[in-house]
Amino acid sequence: MFFASDNGGPAHPQILQAVMQANDGYRSGYGADAEMDRVRDQIRDLFEAPDAAVYLVPTGTVANVLTLATLCQPWQSIFCSPVAHIEEDECNAPEFYTGGAKLALVGEGDKMTPEALRSAILAKGGSVHNAQRGPVSITQVTELGRIYSVDEIEALCSVAKEFDLPVHLDGARFANALVQLNCSPAEMTWKAGVDAVSFGGTKNGCMGVEAVIFFDPKHAWEFELRRKRAGHLFSKHRYLSAQMLGYLQDGLWLQTARQANENCARLTTGMRALTGVDFIAEPQANMIFAKMPRALHQRLFDAGAYYYILSGTLEGNDPEEPLLGRFVCDWSIGADGVDQFLAAAQD
Amino acid sequence: MFFASDNGGPAHPQILQAVMQANDGYRSGYGADAEMDRVRDQIRDLFEAPDAAVYLVPTGTVANVLTLATLCQPWQSIFCSPVAHIEEDECNAPEFYTGGAKLALVGEGDKMTPEALRSAILAKGGSVHNAQRGPVSITQVTELGRIYSVDEIEALCSVAKEFDLPVHLDGARFANALVQLNCSPAEMTWKAGVDAVSFGGTKNGCMGVEAVIFFDPKHAWEFELRRKRAGHLFSKHRYLSAQMLGYLQDGLWLQTARQANENCARLTTGMRALTGVDFIAEPQANMIFAKMPRALHQRLFDAGAYYYILSGTLEGNDPEEPLLGRFVCDWSIGADGVDQFLAAAQD
Amino acid sequence: MFFASDNGGPAHPQILQAVMQANDGYRSGYGADAEMDRVRDQIRDLFEAPDAAVYLVPTGTVANVLTLATLCQPWQSIFCSPVAHIEEDECNAPEFYTGGAKLALVGEGDKMTPEALRSAILAKGGSVHNAQRGPVSITQVTELGRIYSVDEIEALCSVAKEFDLPVHLDGARFANALVQLNCSPAEMTWKAGVDAVSFGGTKNGCMGVEAVIFFDPKHAWEFELRRKRAGHLFSKHRYLSAQMLGYLQDGLWLQTARQANENCARLTTGMRALTGVDFIAEPQANMIFAKMPRALHQRLFDAGAYYYILSGTLEGNDPEEPLLGRFVCDWSIGADGVDQFLAAAQD
Amino acid sequence: MFFASDNGGPAHPQILQAVMQANDGYRSGYGADAEMDRVRDQIRDLFEAPDAAVYLVPTGTVANVLTLATLCQPWQSIFCSPVAHIEEDECNAPEFYTGGAKLALVGEGDKMTPEALRSAILAKGGSVHNAQRGPVSITQVTELGRIYSVDEIEALCSVAKEFDLPVHLDGARFANALVQLNCSPAEMTWKAGVDAVSFGGTKNGCMGVEAVIFFDPKHAWEFELRRKRAGHLFSKHRYLSAQMLGYLQDGLWLQTARQANENCARLTTGMRALTGVDFIAEPQANMIFAKMPRALHQRLFDAGAYYYILSGTLEGNDPEEPLLGRFVCDWSIGADGVDQFLAAAQD
Repeated sequence: MFFASDNGGPAHPQILQAVMQANDGYRSGYGADAEMDRVRDQIRDLFEAPDAAVYLVPTGTVANVLTLATLCQPWQSIFCSPVAHIEEDECNAPEFYTGGAKLALVGEGDKMTPEALRSAILAKGGSVHNAQRGPVSITQVTELGRIYSVDEIEALCSVAKEFDLPVHLDGARFANALVQLNCSPAEMTWKAGVDAVSFGGTKNGCMGVEAVIFFDPKHAWEFELRRKRAGHLFSKHRYLSAQMLGYLQDGLWLQTARQANENCARLTTGMRALTGVDFIAEPQANMIFAKMPRALHQRLFDAGAYYYILSGTLEGNDPEEPLLGRFVCDWSIGADGVDQFLAAAQD
Repeated sequence: MFFASDNGGPAHPQILQAVMQANDGYRSGYGADAEMDRVRDQIRDLFEAPDAAVYLVPTGTVANVLTLATLCQPWQSIFCSPVAHIEEDECNAPEFYTGGAKLALVGEGDKMTPEALRSAILAKGGSVHNAQRGPVSITQVTELGRIYSVDEIEALCSVAKEFDLPVHLDGARFANALVQLNCSPAEMTWKAGVDAVSFGGTKNGCMGVEAVIFFDPKHAWEFELRRKRAGHLFSKHRYLSAQMLGYLQDGLWLQTARQANENCARLTTGMRALTGVDFIAEPQANMIFAKMPRALHQRLFDAGAYYYILSGTLEGNDPEEPLLGRFVCDWSIGADGVDQFLAAAQD
Repeated sequence: MFFASDNGGPAHPQILQAVMQANDGYRSGYGADAEMDRVRDQIRDLFEAPDAAVYLVPTGTVANVLTLATLCQPWQSIFCSPVAHIEEDECNAPEFYTGGAKLALVGEGDKMTPEALRSAILAKGGSVHNAQRGPVSITQVTELGRIYSVDEIEALCSVAKEFDLPVHLDGARFANALVQLNCSPAEMTWKAGVDAVSFGGTKNGCMGVEAVIFFDPKHAWEFELRRKRAGHLFSKHRYLSAQMLGYLQDGLWLQTARQANENCARLTTGMRALTGVDFIAEPQANMIFAKMPRALHQRLFDAGAYYYILSGTLEGNDPEEPLLGRFVCDWSIGADGVDQFLAAAQD
Repeated sequence: MFFASDNGGPAHPQILQAVMQANDGYRSGYGADAEMDRVRDQIRDLFEAPDAAVYLVPTGTVANVLTLATLCQPWQSIFCSPVAHIEEDECNAPEFYTGGAKLALVGEGDKMTPEALRSAILAKGGSVHNAQRGPVSITQVTELGRIYSVDEIEALCSVAKEFDLPVHLDGARFANALVQLNCSPAEMTWKAGVDAVSFGGTKNGCMGVEAVIFFDPKHAWEFELRRKRAGHLFSKHRYLSAQMLGYLQDGLWLQTARQANENCARLTTGMRALTGVDFIAEPQANMIFAKMPRALHQRLFDAGAYYYILSGTLEGNDPEEPLLGRFVCDWSIGADGVDQFLAAAQD
C-alpha cells in the first residue's frame, strides 16, 4: 500500500530488459552510442519534429533547470506557478543553473491563468533596475494532479509570445497528461507554442532518465556544454539511451501512464464513497490531494498504508479534524493495491 | 580491439544482477533506500572510517566538483596538475560548481611534487587582491597512467597541511591504483592525509556510479544540499546503491581492476617488443601513452583497432613519424583482446 | 520642483569640502588610508560597537547584496517584504551575489509582521528538497516611506533568532528613520537584534558612499574578499572615506535627514489640504505615496514639477481618475521648494 | 618619495573642479545625467567611433570583468598573460562575473606573442569536454611597464579573429601607452582589431572612474544589465561623469600621462647610472621593475622612500643580494620628487 510517490516503485521489467540488451560490446561514450541515435529518431518521430534537439539526463530536476538555463539570462525572471516543482522542490537549482535568475510566481494555486501570467509579466522588466522578463514554465501534470487542456496551454503560450518569451513544459508526468487529453505529443507541445520540454521517464517506469527536447535546434550546442559542465553527461551513456528505448518500445510509456491513471481513478472513486473525504483539487491523472479525518488516516497507517500527510499530523486529539493527504499512484500499484487500501479505509 | 577508453565496455554482469535484485517492491526515494544503508556501512568498513559521510552520484565529473565545491570557497584556488581531469576535461565544471574558484596548475606533467605544490601555494594568497589558497586535488591514477605511492601522497598532504588546506583525491581509477600499491583504502587516503575521495565505479565495471567519501562528517549536510541543488540527487536512488553493492560484493571492484591492469601489463610487454614504440610515461595501471610510427598506427586502424591518437594525425606522408597514442584497457578486454591487437601490430 | 528621488539633488557642500581636504599628499590604497581609520573609529563610537567590522562601498545595492551574500548560503532564502528594494529594484543582484539564493516574500505590503515572517520561515527548509532558511532583511525606512518602531524591529529579530537566522537592516534611509524614532543607532540595530547594517549616505547628501557594519567581526575577512572580487574595493579609497567623514562631521547626517523629513512633513500637510489627495501610506520620513486626480497631476507637471507616477499615466481622458504619485524630498529641497510645489497644486 | 603605486597620489585639481561644477541643481540618476551625454559624445569623438557604447564604472577591476563577462560565456576561456591583472590581482573577479569561465595563460611573461596565443587557443575547445575558446585580453601598458606596439596589437587581434574571438584591451594605463606610441586612440584599438576597451582614469589623476567602450553597440543593453546587477550603476552618476569630463578637458588625460612617463624616464636614467641596478624589463611608461642590492634598498627606505619590494625582504644579511623593486611614477610626483629619490640613492 505504497502511495507516497511515483518514484517508490520498481522499474518496469521492459526497461531493465532494454538495459540488459544494451550491455554488450563497445560503444563510443558521452552520447555517441548507437542507442542514442535511435532514441533521437524515435522522439523526433513521436513529436513530429524532425529537427528537434534531443538529449537525455538522469533526473527531472536537472532536465528542468538545464533547459531553463538555456532559455534564460541571469538577470531575467522565470514565470511559474507558486507551487511549481522548480520553486518548491529543487533547493534553488534554477537559481544555481541560471546564474541567479529569479522565479516570479504567477497567481495562486497550481494552474496559471493567462490573465495572471500577463499581469506577472507586466510587473517585471521596464527598466534596468528590474528583473527582466524571461521564460514561462508550465507544469503538466500540475503539482496538484490537474491537467492543462491543450487550449489552456495555447492560451498561456500566446501570452508568452506577446512578449516574445520562450515556453518550457515541465513534463515529469508528460505521459500521464497525454493519455488523459487524448492528443498527440506535438499538439500538447510545439503546436500549442511550447519551445522546450522535459519529457519524464523516471516517474513512469524507468530507473532514472528524462529527455530534453528543444524544437528549435539552435539551442543544441549551448545545452550540450551546459550539460557537460554540470556533470550530467554520462560517459556510459548507452544506459540512459537503453532505458529510453525500452520506455518508448511498443508504447510502454503510454501503457504505464494509463495504468497509473486508472489506479488513481479507481482510488478516487473509492475515496469519494468514504465519509469525510474532501478533494482539494479534482484528480485528473495519478495523484490525489484530499482532506480526511484524522481517524481515517490513523486507520490507514495502522493497516500499513504509506503516503504523506501534508498538513497537520497524526498526533492530535480530535479524530474528526481533517488532515490533507497526498496519494500518488505508481504504474505498478495495480487494482489489487488500490482495493486493499480502500478495504483498509472502510474497516 | 577497443582501447579508446574504460568507459566503452559493458558493465560487469554482477552489476546488472544487483540492479535486477533491487528492482523489487517499494523504497523511500532520494537516498533513503535500504540498499544505501548497506552501501554506507560497507564503504565505512572498507575505509576503516566509521564516521565517514558517504554519498553516491552518477558521474566522475560531478563526484569531483561537488566534493571540491564543498571544500572550497569561490575566492580560492584549487591546486592540481596541469593535465588534471578537472582542468582539462570538465568544461569549467569546477569553476561552475565552486561559484568561480580558480584552478592553480602545479608544476608540469601528470604528477605533482611537494616542491612544486609548495611553490604554487606560496604564489597564492597573501593579500585581498589574490586568489586565496584552497584545496589540493590529487588524481590517482594520474592522467598519464602513473600511480602515486603512498609516500608520495603523504608528502603532498603534508605540504597541504602546512597551510591548513584540505586534500581531495580524484579516484576515478581508485581500484586500479590500489591493487597495484597493495595497500588498504585507508592507507591510500585518510591515513596519508586525504580528506575526501571520489571513489570511482563507472570506469571499472559499473554503468554509472561514483561514491563520494568525506572522512570528516561535518561536510555532510552541505554536500547533500549541493547535490540536490545540482540535480544529482536520484529519486530512485536504489539503482545507484545497487550498482555500488554489486561492485563491492565479493571484491568485484578489485577483480575488475586487476583484470584491467593485467591486460595493460600484457599489452605493455607486447608493445615494448615492437620497433619504434616509445612510452612517454611508464604504464603502471590500465593506460598506455606511447609514440609509435604512423605506419604502425595505420596498420592497427586498418585491422580494426579503436583508440585515440593524441598528437598528429594518420593523414601524413611520413610513415616513420611518431604519433602519440593512448591505449586504455577496460576490465572486459581480456588477454585475447590484447593478443589480437598485438598480432595486428606485428603483421 | 524636483521630487523624483533623493538621488537627484546635489551633494552637501560639507561632503565636497571633506573630499577636497583629503586630496592632499599620498595614501596607501584599498582601504588602508588614514581617513578610513577615522571613519571606522567614528562609526564604532556612533553605534557603541567597539568590535564592529566597518566597510565602505559606493552604492546602496552593493551594500545590501554584499552584506546578504556574507550572511547567506546559495541554497537558502532571504526573507524580505514583497516590495523590498532587493526584490524589486536590483535586477537580481542578490541572486547574483549570493550564488543563487532565493528571495522569499513575507506577507503583503511594505512592512513585515512577526506573524507573516514566522509563517514564511516555516514554509522553507524542512528537507533537502527545499530552499533552506536564511537571513531576514528589514528595510528601514520602508519602500512606502514608513518606519519600523524599535519594538517592531525587536519583534522581527526575535522571530529570526527563534530560528537562528541573521538579520540585515537595509538602511539606505537610516538617518531619516533614526531622527524620527529619536533613538540611538545602537537601539535601532544591534540592541534590537540586528546583525548587519547598510548605513546609507548617498540618499542623504553624499555623492556615493554607504557603510556596511557587521556587529560580529567574524564576517570581516570574508566580506573583504567578496568586496574585492566584486570590483568594489576602491584603490583611491580615501575619497570614499572622506565623504563619510564629511557626512558624520558635526552631525551633518542627522541634519540633512531632519531637513528632508521636515520638507516632507510640510509637503504632507499641504497635500492633505488639497481636494482628492489620498495617502496610500502614512508618510513618516521623506517620501509620500499618494493618489491624486489626473487633473491635479497635470497641473503640477505643467508647472514644472518632476516626480514619478507609479500607476496609470497622464494620457487619459478622465480628469478625476486617481493616479498614484511618489514624492521624495531630498535634503536640499527646502521650505521654498515645497511651497512652490504646493502653490502650483492650488492654482 | 612615494613610488608605491599610481593610486597613491592626489586627484588632479581639474578633476575636483569638474566635480564641484557638477554639484549644482537636480539630475536624473543612473546615467541619465546631462554630464554623461557629454562624456559619451566626447569619447565617441576621441575614438572616432560614433556608434560606440560608452559606460562609466568606478574601478579598473570592474571595468575589466564586466566587459569580459559581456564578451564571454561561462564555459569559455579568457586568454591572457600569466601576469595579467585579471589573473593575479582581482581575487577571482573574472571567474565570479563570467559565471565560471577559466583564464587560460598565454606563454610566459608580460607580453603575449601571436605564436603563444595561437598555441593557447588551439589547446582549448575541440570537444564538449574542454573549456571552449573565448575572448583575448591584452593589457596595455603591461604589468611590467612595457608597451605593445600597434603592430603587436594588430598581430594578436589577427590571431583572435582567425578563431572568431573578441578582443578586450585592459587600458588601466591607456593614456600612458598612447602618449608613448604617438598614435590615435582609434589606431591603438578598433583599427587594430580591439572590440572593447577599459579606458582608465583612476591611475592617471581621477578619484575613481573608468570608461568601458564597446565599438559594436550590440553589447550595450546586456552590459547595462550586468552593471546594474553588480551594484555598479551609480544613482548620483553625475559624479562619475564629471570626473571623466574633467579628465578629458583640454587634454588633461594626455598631460598627466606624459608627466608620469617623463618622471619615470628621468628616474630610469638616474637609476641606470647607479651601481648594481638591473632592469628586468625595459621601462616604457610609468613603471620600473629593477633589481638592486639590498643595501641600496635599505638606504632608500631609510631616507623615506616608499615602494614595494617584490622578491626577497630587507631583513637579510647580504648587502649585495639583489632584490626586485617596483617603482611607479604617479602623475603628481614631479621632477623634484624623482631627484630627491635619486639623491637618496646616491648617498
